[in-house]
Amino acid sequence: MAEPEFMQMGKAFVGFYYPEFSKDRSATSALAAVYTEQSCLTFEGAQFQGKAPILEKLASLPFTKVCHQVTTIDAQPIIGVDDNKAVVVMVTGQLKTDDDPPHSFHHSFMLRPAGGAFVISNEVFRLALHN
Amino acid sequence: MAEPEFMQMGKAFVGFYYPEFSKDRSATSALAAVYTEQSCLTFEGAQFQGKAPILEKLASLPFTKVCHQVTTIDAQPIIGVDDNKAVVVMVTGQLKTDDDPPHSFHHSFMLRPAGGAFVISNEVFRLALHN
Repeated sequence: MAEPEFMQMGKAFVGFYYPEFSKDRSATSALAAVYTEQSCLTFEGAQFQGKAPILEKLASLPFTKVCHQVTTIDAQPIIGVDDNKAVVVMVTGQLKTDDDPPHSFHHSFMLRPAGGAFVISNEVFRLALHN
Repeated sequence: MAEPEFMQMGKAFVGFYYPEFSKDRSATSALAAVYTEQSCLTFEGAQFQGKAPILEKLASLPFTKVCHQVTTIDAQPIIGVDDNKAVVVMVTGQLKTDDDPPHSFHHSFMLRPAGGAFVISNEVFRLALHN
């Protein structure tokens, strides 16, 4: 049986996002194209809305090299939104920045279709720290 | 400044969900009221859609006592859906079941307004295991 469309989309998104994030997270990057004025990002509890504030935050992150090792990808359709084409994606994995030890992270996205492609409507990132 | 409505809703939801989950996760529980036929649950990679299949899964989980210790709650409005009243909630924390050691978890929800209350449109649960 073919994988459902929402799962294909979730995996395609993850396959796009993290390599681009590692390569270039500036305002002129491929990443910039998936954020809009409606996009919300919560990064370790700090909230940003709109393309420019989000890209400014991503560009300001204090590391040079970054690599995401993905452990799990879950995806779901959002029934009743955007003709059932919107998708929730939850990613868990480990993040390696510069010469730091790896950190577990979780990362949730809501993706909405936009002119044959998709945009990130919502994004929440957390490192897994439990003190 | 008052806390934004989406954050109040996220916190209220978390304050409702986990105590009810600990108390009663049967088909006649208060929990049952927040799932609809459109609800999607992914629990450790297994997918369920609709009230009955989801409640059956929750009721079948193999523990008697369960307690969630919440570490972080992030919430966001979904701009352009349901008059901006739909909310994304991401929770991280530790889960204690029966006499097992605590496990880190992450849990994402999309909540949609429904007649003065809200329902769970999407839910993804994962324990934080990275092997």
